[in-house]
Amino acid sequence: MPSTKTRKKPARSKKAKTRSVATAESMAEKQREISVSEFFAKNRHLLGFDNPRKALLTAVKEAVDNALDACEEAGILPDVHVRLLQLDESRFKLTVRDNGPGIVRAQIESIFGKLLYGSKFHRMKMSRGQQGIGISAAGMYGLMTTGKPVHIISKTSRRKPAHDVTLKIDTSKNRAEVVTDKESPKSDDLFPGGNGTQVVIELEGRYQKGRQSIDEYLEQTAIANPHAELTWISPTNETIVFPRAVDELPDEPKEIKPHPKGIELGTLIQMLERTDTGSLSGFLQKEFCRVGQRKASELAKKADKLSSKTITPRTRVSQLGHAEANCLYQAIQEASIMSPPTDCLVPIGSRALLAGLLKEVQAEFFAAATRPPSVYRGNPFQMEVAIAYGGSLGSEETARILRFANRVPLLYQQSACSSFKAVAETSWKNYGLSQPRGSLPTGPLVVLVHMASVWVPFTSESKEAIADYDEIRKEMKLALQECGRKLGTYLRRRKQMRKQAERRDIFERYIGEIAVCCEALVGTDPKKLYAALRKQAAKKTREADQKLDLDGKVVSNKRLEQDEDVIILPNRQFLTGDEVDSLFEGDAPPEKKKKSVKKSTKKKSSNRKKSSSKAR
Amino acid sequence: MPSTKTRKKPARSKKAKTRSVATAESMAEKQREISVSEFFAKNRHLLGFDNPRKALLTAVKEAVDNALDACEEAGILPDVHVRLLQLDESRFKLTVRDNGPGIVRAQIESIFGKLLYGSKFHRMKMSRGQQGIGISAAGMYGLMTTGKPVHIISKTSRRKPAHDVTLKIDTSKNRAEVVTDKESPKSDDLFPGGNGTQVVIELEGRYQKGRQSIDEYLEQTAIANPHAELTWISPTNETIVFPRAVDELPDEPKEIKPHPKGIELGTLIQMLERTDTGSLSGFLQKEFCRVGQRKASELAKKADKLSSKTITPRTRVSQLGHAEANCLYQAIQEASIMSPPTDCLVPIGSRALLAGLLKEVQAEFFAAATRPPSVYRGNPFQMEVAIAYGGSLGSEETARILRFANRVPLLYQQSACSSFKAVAETSWKNYGLSQPRGSLPTGPLVVLVHMASVWVPFTSESKEAIADYDEIRKEMKLALQECGRKLGTYLRRRKQMRKQAERRDIFERYIGEIAVCCEALVGTDPKKLYAALRKQAAKKTREADQKLDLDGKVVSNKRLEQDEDVIILPNRQFLTGDEVDSLFEGDAPPEKKKKSVKKSTKKKSSNRKKSSSKAR
Repeated sequence: MPSTKTRKKPARSKKAKTRSVATAESMAEKQREISVSEFFAKNRHLLGFDNPRKALLTAVKEAVDNALDACEEAGILPDVHVRLLQLDESRFKLTVRDNGPGIVRAQIESIFGKLLYGSKFHRMKMSRGQQGIGISAAGMYGLMTTGKPVHIISKTSRRKPAHDVTLKIDTSKNRAEVVTDKESPKSDDLFPGGNGTQVVIELEGRYQKGRQSIDEYLEQTAIANPHAELTWISPTNETIVFPRAVDELPDEPKEIKPHPKGIELGTLIQMLERTDTGSLSGFLQKEFCRVGQRKASELAKKADKLSSKTITPRTRVSQLGHAEANCLYQAIQEASIMSPPTDCLVPIGSRALLAGLLKEVQAEFFAAATRPPSVYRGNPFQMEVAIAYGGSLGSEETARILRFANRVPLLYQQSACSSFKAVAETSWKNYGLSQPRGSLPTGPLVVLVHMASVWVPFTSESKEAIADYDEIRKEMKLALQECGRKLGTYLRRRKQMRKQAERRDIFERYIGEIAVCCEALVGTDPKKLYAALRKQAAKKTREADQKLDLDGKVVSNKRLEQDEDVIILPNRQFLTGDEVDSLFEGDAPPEKKKKSVKKSTKKKSSNRKKSSSKAR
Repeated sequence: MPSTKTRKKPARSKKAKTRSVATAESMAEKQREISVSEFFAKNRHLLGFDNPRKALLTAVKEAVDNALDACEEAGILPDVHVRLLQLDESRFKLTVRDNGPGIVRAQIESIFGKLLYGSKFHRMKMSRGQQGIGISAAGMYGLMTTGKPVHIISKTSRRKPAHDVTLKIDTSKNRAEVVTDKESPKSDDLFPGGNGTQVVIELEGRYQKGRQSIDEYLEQTAIANPHAELTWISPTNETIVFPRAVDELPDEPKEIKPHPKGIELGTLIQMLERTDTGSLSGFLQKEFCRVGQRKASELAKKADKLSSKTITPRTRVSQLGHAEANCLYQAIQEASIMSPPTDCLVPIGSRALLAGLLKEVQAEFFAAATRPPSVYRGNPFQMEVAIAYGGSLGSEETARILRFANRVPLLYQQSACSSFKAVAETSWKNYGLSQPRGSLPTGPLVVLVHMASVWVPFTSESKEAIADYDEIRKEMKLALQECGRKLGTYLRRRKQMRKQAERRDIFERYIGEIAVCCEALVGTDPKKLYAALRKQAAKKTREADQKLDLDGKVVSNKRLEQDEDVIILPNRQFLTGDEVDSLFEGDAPPEKKKKSVKKSTKKKSSNRKKSSSKAR
C-alpha cells in the first residue's frame, strides 16, 4: 500500500503539551499478561454471574451438570442431591452431592481451582460440560463474594478413604491454593454406594422461585433426564424429589474424530506440523473420521493433480509445505466423503420428550419431531422439537419456549438463541396460530427445542443460548414445521367439527317444527318424519359424529391418530407419573417407538411427591 | 447434609456391562489444561468470527480500535488507513496503518501473538480496547483460515529503523512463533511522521456493503471520533476519506483507582493479602480512590466497633483475618464515601453528537442529552443519547439504534444490548410515537446511545453489546426520556399548529360569504367586515402564525429554541461538513456549549469526499 500523499505532516495535537503523552517505550512497560481467571473475575457476567439470583442458578447448574456427566460416563444411574441453605439475607451455602465415580485426589485442585481445565474440551463427544470453566468459576465467585474457600469431599471406592479438601483459586495465577486437606473416613455415610463427590460453595445470592429459578432448572432437567433422580432441598426447607422415570441410562455417546470437511486450511496445516504419523495416508486415516486407506489414496491423488510437487499416499507429512497443504485442502473440499458417524449423538427421543411435556404441561395436543443428524462446521448435531397446545395454557400469551442443549435446560438469553429465531421465523399463521410479524406466535403453545451435539456453540461461556449458525437454525425450523403441520391439521379439523356440529344443532332445532307442520299440511306421521329427518341430518354431518367426542369439543383424527409422535388428550387432566408411564407402556428404551395409547386418564394428582421432611 | 435414606442402593445401570465404563482413575488421565487460544479458536464466535462477513468487520474493528487508542494515548491526532484487498473469492488481505507511537520490538510477539496480553486490562481507564484479545484473535483467525502469518511493520521514532516481523500464534501454547524478523529502512515512507504501525492479515471473509458492514463501522467511527481522519480503500478500489472535523484531541481520560464501594468482600480479602503496604490506613489510601487519611481513620473506627479484635488505622494489614476483613467490608458499606472522580470519563458531548447525526441523518428534529456520571459495581460511567426525527427517515419502520461504547460503534447483537432494552422500555407513546408492546417505537426515528466508562461490561468477548446492568439501563432510560420529552413537545406543538391552521382555513373560507350576507341583511360595509373578521380569525389562531413557517408544515418552538441540545431544521437538506460546522461555529472544544444557530442551509452535497484514485 504505497502512500502517494503530499498532505501536511500528521501533527501532534495542540493539547499534547499539557497531556501526559505516552511513548512506545512507556506503553511497552505497561504491557502485561492477563490470567484467564483475572479475565473472567472481571467479566464474570460472561460466566453467568451477572446478578445474585442468576449467580445461584449458575452455581447449581454447573455442579449438577458435572455430576450428571460423571455418573453417565461411569455408567451409574445418577442420584443427585442439591441443597441450598440461607445463611443470612444475601449469603447462601450450596451443597451438591452425587453418586458418581468420585475424583482422584491429585485432580481435585485443578478441577475446582483452575479455569480452563478439564477432560471434555479436547475430545469430540456429546456431554453437558465442554469448557472446563464452570465449577471453578462458581468457586471463584463464591470466594470473591464471601471470601470462603470451596469445600470438596470425594470418594472413589469403598476401599479408599474419602478426601476432604478446601481450596481457594489464586485469581492472579489461575491456580488452586489448598487451605485444608485430610482423609475423612467419617464422610463415608455421604456415599452409601461407596463413591461420589460433594462440593460445598458459600456464595452471595438471592433465592426466588418462578421463571429462571433453580426450581425451574431442576424441573426441566428432570424432563430431559428421566434416568436421573434429583433431590432438592430449598432454602425454605422444602424437599422436592424428582423421581427416576426410566431405569436405563441413555445410550453412551461415542467419541469421534474430526471430519475432514470441517477442517480449515490453517488448522490442517497445524495438524500436519504436529502429527507424529509419517506418511500422508497414515495421517489422514489417524486424524480424521470417515477416511480409510482408499479414501486417503483418493485424496492424495486429487491433491497431486492440483500440486506442482508430487504427492502420493506415502509422501512424508514433513515434506508438505503451505502450497501442498493448500492442494490437500482443496482435494478434501472436492472429494465426496461420507457424513460423520452419528452414534456420537444420543437424542432424548420423541417419546421421552412427549412424556416429559405431558408431565409438565396441561395441554390437549402434543406432537414431537426428531430430525436426522446434520453437520455444522464439521460438528455433527441433531435437533428435536416437541410442542404442546391448548388445554389450560394461556391463550393470550406469547408461546413459551423450553430450550435444551445436550439435555441441559437453557434459562437465560432466550432472544439471543438460535432457537428463538427459528421459532420466530416459522410461519405459525400457516398452522392456524396468530403471530405478530417477526415475533413468537401467540396462543396456548409450549415449544420444546433440544440440540444434541458433540460441540454446542454457545453465545457465551455461561452457556445460555445457542449461537445462530445457519445450519442449526435450518434444522430447528424443519423440525418446528413438522410439528406445526400436525398442529395445523388438528386445528383445522377441530374447526371443521365445530362448524358441522353447529350446523346439525340448527338443523335439529327445526326438525320437530317441520314434522308437525308437514303433518298439518299433508298428514305425514310426525314421528316417522322426525326420525327420517334426524337420520338424514346425522348422515350429512357424519364427520362431526366421527370426530366429536361427548362434550362436542375434542376431536380425534385418523391420520394424526396413527402418528406415533402425536398425542391428543380430551378433557386434559394433569397426569401422575405412573399414568404418563402407562401411556408409553412397553416403550423401553424410550427412543424405540411403539404405537401410542391415546387415552385420557381422569385422575387428578401432582406429578411429583412433595414432603417437608428431608427425605422420603 | 446427613442422608437418612433407606432406599435401594444406587445401582449401576443394566446397560453398564456393555458400556465402556469410566472410573475416577481413567477419567483423571483425560484431564488436561486448555490453553486460552485453543479455547477461543474453538469458540471463535465468542470473539466475533462467526461467519466470513462478520470476521472481516471484526478484524478491521480490532485493528482500528487499537490504532485510535495508541494515537490518543501518545497525544497524536489519529490518521488511520484501512485497505481491504480481495485475493480470491473468499480470501482477503487486510492492511491497517496508523501514525501512532509504534510498538517496541520486544512487545510485538506478545501483542500480536498472545491472547490475554495488553496494557489496558489491569488499569481503570477509559479506552476502546480492554481485554488484550482482539488483534491477536484476528491474527489467529487469519492463520486458521489461510495458514498465513500476521505481518507487522512498526516504527517508534525517526531515528530508529522500522521493524518488519511476521509471526504465527501457536494455538496450543498461546504463544507467538516468529517466522521472519528484520529491520526495514525501506518501510520508512509508510510513516511520514516518523512513527506508526502497520498490520497485515490475510483471512477468509466476504465483503458486502450495507448494514453491519465495514463501511458502516467506519462511518459511525467517524461520527464518534471527529478528531480522527480515516481513509478507507475498499475491495472495489474505491477510496473514501472521512476527513478530520476537529483539530483537537478529546480531553485525556484519567486513570483511577477502584472505589471502595465497588469492592466485594472476597476481593477485599485478596487485596489485603497481596498489598505491600504495612498499615490499614496506608492500604486504604493507596489502593482506593476517595480515601484520604481522615476517611481511612473513620473506616478503621467503624470496623473496630463491629469487630471483636481491636482495629486501628495503624493495625498491620497482615494481622487482619477473615472476620476483621468482614468488619472492614461492613464499615465500607455503611460509610458515606464520595462518588468516584469523573475526570476518568470523557463523553463525546451533546454538540458533537448532534453534529455527527446532522451529517449522517436527514431528519428535521434533533435533540441530545448527556447524563451526569454514575457508577455500576464501582465503575464510573456516563450515558449520552441523541435522537433524530422526521425528514426523510422512513415513517413505517422500526426506530434505528446507533450504539457506541467508548466511541466504538457496536453493530451486532442489538437485541442483547442493554441499550435496546432501554429504548424498548421507554414509553415513546407518551412522546407521540407509536410503539408495539415491549418493542422499539416505530416512526422516522434514529436513536444514538453512547456509553463512556472505565470498564464497559460487554455481553461477550466480541464486544458487540452492553450487558444489562440495572444501573446502566436506568441511566440510559433517563437520557432517552430527556430527549423523548423534547421530541414530544415538538410533535405536540406541530400537531396543534396544523389543527389551528386547518381551523383558520375553514374560517376564512366562510368570511367572504358572511361579509356579503351581512351587507344584504343590515347593510354593513362588506370590505370592512371582511377585514375585521380576518383580523379576529388571525388573532384566535395566532399560535399557528407564530409557529408555522411559510409552507405551513414546520414549526419552531420557543422553549425548544432556547435549548442548546435541540436543533430544528425546516426543509431539511443533507448538509455538507462545512455547513454542519457552521452550525457549531465557535464551539471548540465541542463539549463546551454555545447558543446554537437554528438555520437551515439549502445547498445539497455529499458529506464526504469520494474519489476512485488511491489517495487525494
